[in-house]
Amino acid sequence: MAEDFLARCRAIVGAPRVLIDDADMAPYLTDWRGRFTGRARAVLLPGDTAEVARLVQACADARVPIVPQGGRTGLVLGSVPDASGAAVVLSLRRMNRILEVDTVNRTITVQAGCILQQIQEAAFEAGLLFPLSLAAEGSCTIGGNLSTNAGGTAVLRYGNTRELCLGLEVVTPQGRVWDGLRGLRKDNTGYALRELFVGAEGTLGIITAAVLKLHPQPKAAVTALVAVESPETALGLLSLMQDVCGSSLTAFELMSQFCLRLVAEHFPHLPRPFAQAHAQYALLEVSSSESEAHGLALLESAIEAALEGGLAIDAVVATSHAQSGGLWQLREHIPLAQAAAGKNIKHDVSLPISRIADFIGATDAKLAQSFPGCQVVCFGHLGDGNLHYNVAPPPGGSHDAFLANQDAINRIVHDNVAAFEGSISAEHGIGALKREELKRYKDDVELDMMRAIKGALDPLGIMNPGKIL
Amino acid sequence: MAEDFLARCRAIVGAPRVLIDDADMAPYLTDWRGRFTGRARAVLLPGDTAEVARLVQACADARVPIVPQGGRTGLVLGSVPDASGAAVVLSLRRMNRILEVDTVNRTITVQAGCILQQIQEAAFEAGLLFPLSLAAEGSCTIGGNLSTNAGGTAVLRYGNTRELCLGLEVVTPQGRVWDGLRGLRKDNTGYALRELFVGAEGTLGIITAAVLKLHPQPKAAVTALVAVESPETALGLLSLMQDVCGSSLTAFELMSQFCLRLVAEHFPHLPRPFAQAHAQYALLEVSSSESEAHGLALLESAIEAALEGGLAIDAVVATSHAQSGGLWQLREHIPLAQAAAGKNIKHDVSLPISRIADFIGATDAKLAQSFPGCQVVCFGHLGDGNLHYNVAPPPGGSHDAFLANQDAINRIVHDNVAAFEGSISAEHGIGALKREELKRYKDDVELDMMRAIKGALDPLGIMNPGKIL
Repeated sequence: MAEDFLARCRAIVGAPRVLIDDADMAPYLTDWRGRFTGRARAVLLPGDTAEVARLVQACADARVPIVPQGGRTGLVLGSVPDASGAAVVLSLRRMNRILEVDTVNRTITVQAGCILQQIQEAAFEAGLLFPLSLAAEGSCTIGGNLSTNAGGTAVLRYGNTRELCLGLEVVTPQGRVWDGLRGLRKDNTGYALRELFVGAEGTLGIITAAVLKLHPQPKAAVTALVAVESPETALGLLSLMQDVCGSSLTAFELMSQFCLRLVAEHFPHLPRPFAQAHAQYALLEVSSSESEAHGLALLESAIEAALEGGLAIDAVVATSHAQSGGLWQLREHIPLAQAAAGKNIKHDVSLPISRIADFIGATDAKLAQSFPGCQVVCFGHLGDGNLHYNVAPPPGGSHDAFLANQDAINRIVHDNVAAFEGSISAEHGIGALKREELKRYKDDVELDMMRAIKGALDPLGIMNPGKIL
Repeated sequence: MAEDFLARCRAIVGAPRVLIDDADMAPYLTDWRGRFTGRARAVLLPGDTAEVARLVQACADARVPIVPQGGRTGLVLGSVPDASGAAVVLSLRRMNRILEVDTVNRTITVQAGCILQQIQEAAFEAGLLFPLSLAAEGSCTIGGNLSTNAGGTAVLRYGNTRELCLGLEVVTPQGRVWDGLRGLRKDNTGYALRELFVGAEGTLGIITAAVLKLHPQPKAAVTALVAVESPETALGLLSLMQDVCGSSLTAFELMSQFCLRLVAEHFPHLPRPFAQAHAQYALLEVSSSESEAHGLALLESAIEAALEGGLAIDAVVATSHAQSGGLWQLREHIPLAQAAAGKNIKHDVSLPISRIADFIGATDAKLAQSFPGCQVVCFGHLGDGNLHYNVAPPPGGSHDAFLANQDAINRIVHDNVAAFEGSISAEHGIGALKREELKRYKDDVELDMMRAIKGALDPLGIMNPGKIL
């Protein structure tokens, strides 16, 4: 029976595309952070959509669970199999062709296994911009970005991945092919299936291709680092920047003093823009469709207003590409500095922007009470209401020992997220890692609707079981 | 039994809120265009979400179908009951309170029965913009806008209604209340239920409240009318405008010479910007977050480049608010001029922008062949790929008699829409009117998934039956 199934898979994709040796399968079984290794019956490597459909039919007939996999860069154990060894991994990596660039419709049609950076580059070569951008862009695939509705650094201006997608091709859990590769800005002909498959983490079907929106390339992007007194002042600065710059404001990142201290400690070669330390820093980016001078004038006039209005203490405006890169490096090195300092307890949360300062204040206080001296590494995409709120041990404390507090600390942070009407997963998704947390914080009405949809579209329950629900 | 049901409804909302007299019910039973009048068992007028939930429970227990209704301005018979008299109309009109304006989070929370204009005004008073704007804004409700994923004139810059919505409160077909009134820009905790209810035309549940995104108010909007040679040249102009103006381009409307001739004929007091007639006209709007002078400079530099590059023949830039209003009036009077000329056969279609010129050419030719002399009134939101492609009889022909060709003409237009990979309903939805067309043009895989979701969320089939599916 098991041999029948594997023989059928081999007949579909050829024996070399059905991996069963442990050594061959190993690269597909461990999660990105290296914290969990699952087992699989086989790893399947289809080369086109028809093969995916036939493989899914074979799995459905044999009741074999399927774990769809892209670049395996997810952070919530969404794309690796569990420990049972019952499932197959279906990797989309061979399906990595750019199918079409339409410069008039401003769309790009790609297979799911395309690396994000490959798509960015194809758009750039066509004189356009695919704005999705995130740390893993050199190895994550667009299929994974879509399945997790990836966020990243350009959400403030361009939206999440769902908003960058116009059409999908999906293989259903029955092995049928839905050709929804439409390149339309307006289409009100029935239910929002595209939106539903985006972010479903492979639990409702397998995304095999997509039509993505492209944007005009801005002529220039200019950057500034602004010292602010508190998260609350940062909110005032955000409002001011939005009013002055409108949609030209393309990034607004918040970093606490502790974050930059960590970076300075572990990466002493990076710039130190201010002689004095300040409580919080906002990293701002303004893009102009006109010119660098225009962007700079806009940014400077906003900062001037902020300084006058008491919303900023000090500011550094980058006057060269290299300076701008240096400021962004400070932001990008926070996770690396954290890793260098030792393990910590991470949270990827979002809040209504108006409640962020109160959330930070209340959560800092609660943690200080329960875990005296613990250090909070708080930074994130303030413009999107998205905070990376990570907790490290008191100075000198053992990072590994501190991890024993993970459940208690999750409870404090996530309870406060719920109290301030936020989300326990802003951009990373649920996967297997946050499944229990989801049950705790989602109300039953919503969970029941999700279960009903899962049952309706995947009645055999073979699509990425144990993820989300 | 029927009396039991009505008695239960009266116990929930009070007898005066359960209309059963024909005269009382009449205003709720006829569609906006006055082409169809349905029948209902009663019209229910709940005052809050709890009452909606209890009414839905009563309907579910008695298996009474429910037609949710807002401002009743839809164009596809989505919000009126059928002729059977089996259903109740559940009007949300009494639930018309603005619940909260959060200027820092830039959100507004509203009940479903709020009139769109009321929301625009509340946003404006708070110094912000709710960009959804359409002809019926003085009487349509936001619940209807959400349920139909309304488009309108600001989609190019701000997206459809779905993209303007962050959170929903929904009463499910079981009469449970889903509190999804979240004000979050990023939230990856499970399936896209909000996106699914938006555009579901009341067939999956009843939207009772929503959290909507607000944007900064632009400082100024400037307008121009540009004469162009052909739809193809208009596409070139659109690309140029997007490259030069980026997200400052907030409208790009196309109108054929015949459209403006109709307007001139029926509304001779309106401006005639050009001495000479041209084949096509593009109405452009550029918004600036800085100043009117900035917007004007941007618009003029783009038009200059278009004139030099042969993408424009002539152009009029409005130099006052009144002039700008006059140019917009030309566009807005096209439907009125059409109505004054007599009935015609309407289509609300969308296409990949790159295929619009070919679609217009091919469809015009096919119609001229099958209906010699017929006149096409073609205009629309070119920047969104959305055309209103309406067909009138040959000059001097009877409009009423010409309507007999409706099915044949629909077939020609919609077959070409399908051939050019477009949508038969860009912004109006499906309702009862386009249900058969939907079955003809959607593939079975997609229809089956839609039916599965409908069956899963509304197993009794009581929510707005006969609409969409």
